[in-house]
Order: sequence, then C-alpha cells, then structure tokens
Amino acid sequence: MSPFTGSATRTPTEDWRHLRLTLDAGVATVTLARPGKLNALTFGAYADLRDLLPELARDGSVRALVLGGEGRGFCSGGDVDDIIGATLAMDTGRLLDFNRMTGQVVRSLRECPFPVIAAVHGVAAGAGAVLALAADFRVADPTARFAFLFTKVGLSGGDMGAAYLLPRVVGLGHATRLLMLGEPVAAPEAERIGLISRLTAEGEAHTEAAALARRLADGPALAHAQTKALLTAELDMPLAASVELDAATQALLMNSADYAEFHAAFTEKRPPEWRGR
Amino acid sequence: MSPFTGSATRTPTEDWRHLRLTLDAGVATVTLARPGKLNALTFGAYADLRDLLPELARDGSVRALVLGGEGRGFCSGGDVDDIIGATLAMDTGRLLDFNRMTGQVVRSLRECPFPVIAAVHGVAAGAGAVLALAADFRVADPTARFAFLFTKVGLSGGDMGAAYLLPRVVGLGHATRLLMLGEPVAAPEAERIGLISRLTAEGEAHTEAAALARRLADGPALAHAQTKALLTAELDMPLAASVELDAATQALLMNSADYAEFHAAFTEKRPPEWRGR
Amino acid sequence: MSPFTGSATRTPTEDWRHLRLTLDAGVATVTLARPGKLNALTFGAYADLRDLLPELARDGSVRALVLGGEGRGFCSGGDVDDIIGATLAMDTGRLLDFNRMTGQVVRSLRECPFPVIAAVHGVAAGAGAVLALAADFRVADPTARFAFLFTKVGLSGGDMGAAYLLPRVVGLGHATRLLMLGEPVAAPEAERIGLISRLTAEGEAHTEAAALARRLADGPALAHAQTKALLTAELDMPLAASVELDAATQALLMNSADYAEFHAAFTEKRPPEWRGR
Repeated sequence: MSPFTGSATRTPTEDWRHLRLTLDAGVATVTLARPGKLNALTFGAYADLRDLLPELARDGSVRALVLGGEGRGFCSGGDVDDIIGATLAMDTGRLLDFNRMTGQVVRSLRECPFPVIAAVHGVAAGAGAVLALAADFRVADPTARFAFLFTKVGLSGGDMGAAYLLPRVVGLGHATRLLMLGEPVAAPEAERIGLISRLTAEGEAHTEAAALARRLADGPALAHAQTKALLTAELDMPLAASVELDAATQALLMNSADYAEFHAAFTEKRPPEWRGR
Repeated sequence: MSPFTGSATRTPTEDWRHLRLTLDAGVATVTLARPGKLNALTFGAYADLRDLLPELARDGSVRALVLGGEGRGFCSGGDVDDIIGATLAMDTGRLLDFNRMTGQVVRSLRECPFPVIAAVHGVAAGAGAVLALAADFRVADPTARFAFLFTKVGLSGGDMGAAYLLPRVVGLGHATRLLMLGEPVAAPEAERIGLISRLTAEGEAHTEAAALARRLADGPALAHAQTKALLTAELDMPLAASVELDAATQALLMNSADYAEFHAAFTEKRPPEWRGR
Repeated sequence: MSPFTGSATRTPTEDWRHLRLTLDAGVATVTLARPGKLNALTFGAYADLRDLLPELARDGSVRALVLGGEGRGFCSGGDVDDIIGATLAMDTGRLLDFNRMTGQVVRSLRECPFPVIAAVHGVAAGAGAVLALAADFRVADPTARFAFLFTKVGLSGGDMGAAYLLPRVVGLGHATRLLMLGEPVAAPEAERIGLISRLTAEGEAHTEAAALARRLADGPALAHAQTKALLTAELDMPLAASVELDAATQALLMNSADYAEFHAAFTEKRPPEWRGR
C-alpha cells in the first residue's frame, strides 16, 4: 500500500455507505454502524473495508486507525440472512470472488502502513473475530467475547487467514480448539492466552483505544509503521534474512528526522517533538 | 492421506497386535495397551501407529480419533530395554529407517483427515509426549505430566518433530526449556503454557475425550477436517498464500451439504442435521 | 560456527577489553562490566560480542555460556551518548555496517553450538533486551524488567531480529505491544507471557544461571547442542523437512558415546557418566 499515484484517477470516496469514518489529526476511526444487527457484515461492508484501507494509505495522513462497533457489540460476523443465503446461490467463480474479498480485508489490515487498534466490547464473532485478530492491538473490556464460529455453520475455521494468524497469536493448541469448536472465548480467557492486548474497565474499550491511537499518531509514527511492517513480514521469513531486513530498516531510520530529534531532545533534556518522519 | 485406492491390494488389517482399536459410528479409539510397561512403545507399536492412520483414512468412515493409554498412564515412550538396546546394535541405514518410522507417525497424526484427541492421564514421556503433542487436542486430567526426556538418554530433544511442534504450541522459550532439560511438566503448568487443551477432573480424561470425539464425529466433520488441514498447512505458509488457500477452501465448502443444511435449519429454526459432507 | 581451522591464523584473543570472560570447565561466563553506565553497549562491546562467540565455538571446550551484567542491572542497551550521537554522523554504508554488526551478535547467540543462559536482574533495555531474548534461557529475578524501547528513540522495534524472535517467544499480540510501545515489562508479566524461562528469588539470577550452566556442561552436551540447533533451524522449516532432520540427527546421536553410556548405566543401575560426545 502506497501513497504514490499513477495515471489512474482515484477520486477519494466521499461517502462510505457501509461504515462510518472519522478522521482527526492522524487518527482514523472506523465504526461498524449497523447496531440493530450487531454490526453484521454485508457484501457492501466487506467491500468498503477492502477499499478503505488502501485509500487511507494513499492519503498518507493516517498514522493510526481504530476499528470498533456501535451498540451492544463489536461485530457478529457475516450476516446470516444476507450473506449465507446469497452464497448458496453463487456459482464457483463468484464464491471465490467473495472469499477473496473477505481475505483481502485481512491482508489490508496487516499490510496497511499504520497500526490498527480493534476496540472490542461484547461479541466479536465469525468474520468479526477475524477482523479483531488481524488488528495490531485488541483493546477489550470485560464484556468482550470472541467466537470463531465458522464450523458451526458448516465452514472451515480457517476463514480470512484465521488458521494462519491465530496459531501465531495464541499458539497451535489454543488455536485448534478455538477454530475447530467455534466456542466463545470470554475476556478473562482471551487475556490469559494472549488474544487481548489490553483489558480495560467495562465500557472503556473505545476510550482507551482512542487514547492509544492518539498516542501512536502523535509519536514517532514512521517508527511505528516500520515496526508493524517488520512484524508482519518476519512471521514469513527466516532468522538470517530477518536480521538483514532489520539492519537495513534501522540504517534507514537512523537518517530520519525523528531519530535526530530524539538525540537533540535528549541532549537538551526536553521531550522530543515527534514529526512521524 | 486418501480414501482412493489403485491397483495395489490393501487388505484391511484384522488384528492390530501392538495396540487396541475400536470403531464406533465414526469414532476410532486407539489404546496403547501394555499397562505393565506403562505402555512403552516397541518397534511393533510404532509400526502399527504408522500403518493404522493411513488405513483409517482409506476406510473413510472415521471422523475423529481418540488416542489413550491403558493402566497407570498414557505412554512412557520408547521401551528402554527393547528399543535402546536394539538401536545400539543397528547400522546407520537401519537407525535412519527407525527414526523415519517414528517421525512418520507424527506426520500421520498431523496429516490424517480427522481430528485426533489425546486422552492423557499420568505419564506422557519421550515419544509418548510427542504423540500427545502431535494430536489436535490434549484432554488431560490433573495426574498428567509431560516429559520430553530425550536429552536424559543422550539424544536430541528434537525427536519426531518435537523441535518443530513444541515452539508452535507453547512458544520458543518454554519449548527450549522443556526439550533441553527434559524435566517433567505437571498438569497445572502444562495448562498454563498451552500444552493442555482441556483440563478435566481426575479420572475424567478418557470420558471427556470420548465425548469430544463423539461431538466432532456427529458434527460438520468435513468442516473439522478442513480446519485441521489448514491449521497444519498454514504453519508452513506465508500470509498471502494462506488467505488464498482459505478463500479456495471456503468457496469449496460453500457447496457442501452441511453449509446448505445449516442455512435451512437456521431458516426453519431447528438444529442442523449434519452429514459431515 | 565450527572448531575447524584453515590457513587463516586466528590467535585467541587474550584480553577482551569491552566485556569480562571467565572459563571454568566447560562453562563460559560473559559479563557486561560497565556498571557505572548500567552496562550500556559501546561499539567495542558489540564487536567483542560478535567476535567472542565464534572464537569460543572454535575453541571447542565451551558447553554452556552465561551472559550477565555487573552492578544494578543486566544491560541498558546501546549507549545514548556514544552510539546515537555517532550514528547521526555516519553515512549510509557505515550505518548498515553498524546495524549488521549488532544483528550478527544475535545470529551468533542463536547459532553457537552451546546453550546460552541470560542471567537477568534489573533493567534489560533496548539491545540489552534483545540479547536476553536471543539467549536459550532467561533466568531472571523479580527485579528484572524488559523494555524493547526502540520506538522511544525513533527507531524500529524490529532491531537485531527482535521482530522475528519475540513473536515466536510470546506470540504476535504481546510482541506487537512490546515492540510498538517500548514499555517496560516487569518480571511477573514477563514470566506470565513466557519471556522468562525461570524466575528466581531476588538476587539469585546469577547463582541459578551458573548452576544451570554447570548442569548443562556436565551433562550430555552434544545432545543439548543438537537440541538447540534443531530448535533454531526448525523455526524456519516446514513439518516434513523438520521430521526428516530430526530422524537424521537422532540416527547420528544413536552412535554417540553418551547414548551408549546411558544404556550401560541404566543396565548397571548407576548414574551415567556423560562425556558430551
């Protein structure tokens, strides 16, 4: 994902019809806003999530993103009526198009050049659980419960990259149990096995996620972006190549404005003024 | 592993002499039954485990497998008298044949097209600990203790894939400690680090493992099999390829009988009748 | 790393000026000894760590290594005055040389043919945290606190292989939090997430690390070395290849003196006398 543009005209989307987007000084907040349906995802919502992240990357001003849900929970996953019913009528090529689209959302969450913070309260089920899983941080309150319930509808627990990501977050044993059985995981267990990054007081997940995003956006944002990029890439790389990538990245950042600023501030015994560059 | 057969005649084995096999409506139960020796493994037992899993895969009716031990514990590992003594007299080629056979058992446990549940009580040591590790679920009671005691006999802790699997289940730090030192890990610690999937009351490991197998066999078994296949494959795959594999798998299962049945049942407000197809 | 030498003359270093080395019957103890600066690393200290490990591997007598710090803590990381100031004046090639050198230290810690035990008390920050992370064991007392504080100076959290190693030790969720935010992790949390291998009583980290090193050096050291080599290699290998590597390694060790000695001792009902061969 890149801010560079070529010949293709890309008019920024003015109205995201299937989600709510606010931008505030480097922090993007994306809200799944279908509270009457526990923010169940529709074809349009998946497509908007897929399109939104590259658009924000192109814009270049976003330094942290919060993803949350309105109402009683985070996201109940793909809508049973809309999506399951419709997929039963699709032919093979169309089914592949659909599942590639949902997977592309997860790739975008992992590959976008800014950290993503999922603010989770209440249910994060099915595709909703995978969206949270693909975020860099899961800030959750005690009402949060995660359910990778794909097998409960007759599908594979490995949906949208879940069979890749979950073992790398909680280990293969827990991941097998969660994906195979599809049972809900309440907040205490989710924290114990490493699925929750930060457990807040009840009702505080959105506030704390916003505070974390603000802190990340106001900090050395290029350093954060590179940290995310290396974490994502090095899951798929051997040790020797990872060490080489780290060396090249660090040599690059040692030419950055923020690194020089840190040293100046340290010498002058004042806090650094980060530029994110 | 595949149910397809070709020219080769494969008469189903009538009598597994080195283990006990029962089949009950989709659930295979394999019992290591040498209780006087804490179910120590012999050359014959390894070979039977190696041959049994492809045979069950060929049969096609098995949807879940329970692996347990009779008597005071799960399995004390390779028999010191029979195996260590014999290997000291083997030449290089024969030693490689033996170690490839034991490794093949682990590959079969990971690659067979149904979930494997280890029911663990008492000791799971050496090769016994690795058999449990290679299962999808470790249902264990408080008497369970795991010991990867290979270094204690002068061998490498990386036996039968343990140096691959254990870091992916409990993390590299714990795995290093367990494989390098070979010390026993009691049930509370095993649960804390993610080595136990489900901790039962004392004496209940076999009952609960059987109940879990029954539930898996009676459920959407094709979805379970695919979940297992993806978890196994995606440990060795990068993110982008994993997402593509997930998309193709999900598109496939969206044509399955069970997925249609889920939707019909949901619409008719009744529980689904899974066919495992 | 190998004990074999060729035409090149390699005079053993007599005086390691930037660290303290003691050798005692197979146990090497390396002490970062700049206590007035919390053992902050200088260019010379990095270079000495890089050169020391291959030299010890060439020597061939070392079977375990303890890495610790003198004074109030383990290691506060790269020296802000010496290193950050100097790197600001380096050109691109020189920056790459520096970061490759620090990364080479981590590769050497992972690739040397003996287990490395970090004895951690007090602060392990920045590069100091990564040195501890690259060890096979982290024996730490309750005063230990780890801080991967690279982003706090405007750099990437993926320094010296940290973005490769940390997710494989504590999982991707915790690793993201630790590397992105750079916040200190106190001993109880470090133990809970698997970053500490063994938590000791206060002030006992060095004593227990030394005892563990003694035990490893006096034990079946070739088995330990191979266990380490397999754990390191198989993080980067698929299952089938790992099982094959395990089979070849185990066949090799079944010809070792220690394996035969175990069987003789077992038969004679006496403790084995390990030779480490």
